[in-house]
Amino acid sequence: MAEETVAVYPGTFDPITNGHIDLIKRALRIFDRLIVAIGENPAKKPLFTLEERLSMVKEAISAFPCRDRIEVESFSGLLVDFAANKGARVIVRGLRAVSDFEYEFQLALMNRRLNRQIETIFLMPGFKWFYISSTIVKEAAKFGGDVSGLVPPNVEEKLREKFRP
Amino acid sequence: MAEETVAVYPGTFDPITNGHIDLIKRALRIFDRLIVAIGENPAKKPLFTLEERLSMVKEAISAFPCRDRIEVESFSGLLVDFAANKGARVIVRGLRAVSDFEYEFQLALMNRRLNRQIETIFLMPGFKWFYISSTIVKEAAKFGGDVSGLVPPNVEEKLREKFRP
Amino acid sequence: MAEETVAVYPGTFDPITNGHIDLIKRALRIFDRLIVAIGENPAKKPLFTLEERLSMVKEAISAFPCRDRIEVESFSGLLVDFAANKGARVIVRGLRAVSDFEYEFQLALMNRRLNRQIETIFLMPGFKWFYISSTIVKEAAKFGGDVSGLVPPNVEEKLREKFRP
Amino acid sequence: MAEETVAVYPGTFDPITNGHIDLIKRALRIFDRLIVAIGENPAKKPLFTLEERLSMVKEAISAFPCRDRIEVESFSGLLVDFAANKGARVIVRGLRAVSDFEYEFQLALMNRRLNRQIETIFLMPGFKWFYISSTIVKEAAKFGGDVSGLVPPNVEEKLREKFRP
Amino acid sequence: MAEETVAVYPGTFDPITNGHIDLIKRALRIFDRLIVAIGENPAKKPLFTLEERLSMVKEAISAFPCRDRIEVESFSGLLVDFAANKGARVIVRGLRAVSDFEYEFQLALMNRRLNRQIETIFLMPGFKWFYISSTIVKEAAKFGGDVSGLVPPNVEEKLREKFRP
Amino acid sequence: MAEETVAVYPGTFDPITNGHIDLIKRALRIFDRLIVAIGENPAKKPLFTLEERLSMVKEAISAFPCRDRIEVESFSGLLVDFAANKGARVIVRGLRAVSDFEYEFQLALMNRRLNRQIETIFLMPGFKWFYISSTIVKEAAKFGGDVSGLVPPNVEEKLREKFRP
Repeated sequence: MAEETVAVYPGTFDPITNGHIDLIKRALRIFDRLIVAIGENPAKKPLFTLEERLSMVKEAISAFPCRDRIEVESFSGLLVDFAANKGARVIVRGLRAVSDFEYEFQLALMNRRLNRQIETIFLMPGFKWFYISSTIVKEAAKFGGDVSGLVPPNVEEKLREKFRP
Repeated sequence: MAEETVAVYPGTFDPITNGHIDLIKRALRIFDRLIVAIGENPAKKPLFTLEERLSMVKEAISAFPCRDRIEVESFSGLLVDFAANKGARVIVRGLRAVSDFEYEFQLALMNRRLNRQIETIFLMPGFKWFYISSTIVKEAAKFGGDVSGLVPPNVEEKLREKFRP
Repeated sequence: MAEETVAVYPGTFDPITNGHIDLIKRALRIFDRLIVAIGENPAKKPLFTLEERLSMVKEAISAFPCRDRIEVESFSGLLVDFAANKGARVIVRGLRAVSDFEYEFQLALMNRRLNRQIETIFLMPGFKWFYISSTIVKEAAKFGGDVSGLVPPNVEEKLREKFRP
Repeated sequence: MAEETVAVYPGTFDPITNGHIDLIKRALRIFDRLIVAIGENPAKKPLFTLEERLSMVKEAISAFPCRDRIEVESFSGLLVDFAANKGARVIVRGLRAVSDFEYEFQLALMNRRLNRQIETIFLMPGFKWFYISSTIVKEAAKFGGDVSGLVPPNVEEKLREKFRP
Repeated sequence: MAEETVAVYPGTFDPITNGHIDLIKRALRIFDRLIVAIGENPAKKPLFTLEERLSMVKEAISAFPCRDRIEVESFSGLLVDFAANKGARVIVRGLRAVSDFEYEFQLALMNRRLNRQIETIFLMPGFKWFYISSTIVKEAAKFGGDVSGLVPPNVEEKLREKFRP
Repeated sequence: MAEETVAVYPGTFDPITNGHIDLIKRALRIFDRLIVAIGENPAKKPLFTLEERLSMVKEAISAFPCRDRIEVESFSGLLVDFAANKGARVIVRGLRAVSDFEYEFQLALMNRRLNRQIETIFLMPGFKWFYISSTIVKEAAKFGGDVSGLVPPNVEEKLREKFRP
C-alpha cells in the first residue's frame, strides 16, 4: 500500500463553524488529502448560498499550514459517486452527540450499500465543539448573540451582515 | 506525507467474533498496518486466558490475504503508551450501538488527553454484526446454543470445549 | 378465548419498503388477521398520493401465501377509532432504532389514553431492515441510487418514474 | 445570601398543558419568584397567536395559591437578555425524555456562553406528564380525541374551537 | 389459524413488581395462554431463591380473573428451547426505558437466530410503572423505604423480612 | 418566602473530581446552603474509605470563597431521610451524558415517592467536565496516566499513593 489516501468530508457548512475546522485538522493528521465537499441541499433551505458557503470555507482555511492538502468543492447528486470520481475511498463524518448517531449510521449504511469500496469513518471533535452546530450558531446570531470564538472571524462578519436589522 | 499509517485496534477479544474480523478487514482497507492489541483486563475476569485469546485471534486471521500487514499483540498499562511505542497514530474502535457511544467517547477523550498525537477513529461493522458481542455469544454458547456463523470455526470449537458439561 | 385476533399495522407507507413487508410477515405469524392501515397524512407532504400508496402496498403483497388474512385500507382521523371500527384490539408497530423509541411510546400512550381496550405491541424487523426507512430510500432514489433489494420491484419502478429527469 | 431568587421558565406554550402547570408548581417550591416567558417563535408556526397563548396561561394559573409569585410575559430576542433584564439568575427547563436531552443541553450551553451569570436547571415533571407534549395534544385534538385531563379546562375549550369542523 | 396462541413472559422476578403484574394483564388480553418463566440466573446473585420467587409470583397472581390461562414455571438453559417445549411461539418482553432497548434487541436477535419460529414482541407497561424496577425497589426497601403500591402485598412483606435488621 | 434554601448534593465522591467541584460552585450560586453528602456505598467497593473521601472533599473545598455556606457529611440509609433531617428541600444532581439520564430519573422518581416535599434538580457541569468521571480518572491513574487538571491537587497525590507500585 502506502499509496495516497484521499478522504471526503461532506456537509452543508451553512456556515462553517470552528467545530468543522477542528475536524478538518484532525482528518489531515490521518489522511494524505482531504476534500471538503459542500452539498447543495436546496431542500434544507440554507441561509447562505452555495457560493457564499464555498467562499467562507475557502477563506477560513486559507492560512492552514497544510492548505495544499485540502480541496474545497461543491457537489450535488450521490455523495458516493462524487467520492469515487475524486478517487476517495474514505468518507469522514464528525460524531458529537448521541442524537447524531443513528441518522449518521443510516446514511453510512446506505452509502456502503451504494458503493462497497468506500468506507465511512467517524471522528470526534474537540470536546469544546461537541455542542456547537451551524443551527445553534445561526439562532444565536439572529438575535444579536455574540458568536465570536464559535466560528471563524470571516463567518462572524458574514452572519452579522445577514442579520443586520 | 504518504508515509506508512499504523493503527491499533484494541479490545479484550474474549473471544474474537466475526464482528471483530469484519472490522479488521475494514481497517486494513484504510490503514497500511494494523496492530490487534489484546488487553489483559484481569478486572473483567475474562473467560479465556490471555494466551488463549492471543492464539484464537492469530488462528482466526491466519488465512487473510493481507495477513502480513497485521500484527497481534497483548498489552497492559495505558493504551496510548502502547500505541506510541508501536509508532501508531490512530486507534480504531467499532461503533455498533448507541449504548456503546458515550463510554467510547469518554475513553477516546481521556486517551486524547493522555496523548494528543494519537487520534481515535470509529468504524461501523457490517450491519449483520451490529448486535453481536463477545458477551452475548458466550451466554448463548454456555447453554449449548449454536453460535456457528457468529465466531470463526476455531473459536466455536474452543467455546464448546469450555462449556462441555 | 381462542377467538380471532385482529391487528392493525398503521403507517404512511410512502412508499412501502422491504422492511414493512418483513414486519407484515412477522405479524401474520402472531395474529389471525392483519389490517395494513395507510394514513393520509397530508401534513407530511408524501411523495406518493394516497391512491398510489394503496395500490403499491396491494401489489407488493399480492403473491403472499396468507394474502387472504391481510386487508389494505386507508384511514384518516384517530387511529384508535379506525381500529375499534374494524374490531381490532392490537396496534402493531415496528421498532428499529433508539430514535424511534420515545416518539413511538408517546404515540402509544396517547392511543392507550384514547381507547384503553386497544393495546400497542412492538415487533422487531429482521436486522437487515433496521436502517432502512422510506425517507432514506427516497433520498437515494432521487439521485439515481440503486434501491433494488430495499423495496419491492413494483415500488422500485414507481420511484424511477417519479424521479425520472 | 437569602436575597430573593428569580427564575424564568421559557417555552412556546402552544398551548400550555398540565405538564407545564405541574412544572410551574414545582419551580415555585424552590424559587421565590417565577416568570413564565412565552417565546414568540414565529418560525415554529404556532397554532395559537401570542396573545391567545398569553391569555391561556394567565387564565390557567389564575387560581393558584401562590399566583402573586408568578409573572407571565412574552419575549422575543435572546432569552438570556430577557432573563437579565428581569433580574433572574436561573432558567428552568423541564426534562421528560431522552430525546429532549441533547437539544436542551446544546441550548443551555449556548445560553451559558452568552451570559455566564445565568444558570440553567432542569426539573422533572410528575411521571404522568412525561409523555405529554403540546404537539401530541394538538394531534389528538385535531381529530376529535378527548384531551381533558391533559390540558387545563380553558385550553381544552380553545382547542375545540380551533378544530371545530 | 384461530388455534391457541401461547406466549412466554421470561424474567428473573427478583422480586415480582406491580410493573410485572401490569404486563401480565396486558399480555393476557392478546394471547390465549401465558407462561411466566422465571430464570434461575445464579450469575445475577438474586436476593430471593428460585423457590421464593416462584411462590411470590404464584401468590401475587392467585386472585386474577384469568388465573387459569397463566402458568408459572422456572427454567434454566436456553429460553427458546424452553418456549419451544411449551408450544409457545411468542416471547413477551416489557419495554420501559431507552436504556433497556438495545440490550433487549440484542437478546431478541440472538433468540431469533437460535429459533426462527419464535417471535419476540414488546409491550409497554402502564406509565406509572415505567420507572419501577426490581433493583430500585430492593434498594429502597433495604434502607426501610416504603414500597407499598410498587409491589404486591405479599412481596412487600417478604422484602421486610429479608431486610429486617 | 425568601427563607433560606438548603440543597443536598449526594454522591460517592470516590474520589472528588474537578467536575464535582464545578457543580458545587454552580449550586452555591442558586442555593443559600449546600450539603455535600458522601454515601457510604460499601456495595460499590469504593477505592477510598469513607474517611479518606470525607477528608479529600473537605480539603478540596477548603479555600472556596463561600466555604461557610458548604457542609460536608457522610450518610447511610435513605437519602431523602438524610435530606429531611438536615432541613433540605432540594437534591442536586449533575447531568452529563445521556447514559446518566434514565438511571437518574428512576432514582429521582423513587426519591419523590419516598418524600414528596423534596425536589430533585439537575445541573449541567461545565462542558469540559462532561466526559470526566471518578471511574475513568481511576482507570487512567491506575496505569500511571497523568490526571492533573482533572482532580484537585490533593486528590492527585492520594491517587498516586494508592497506585504506587
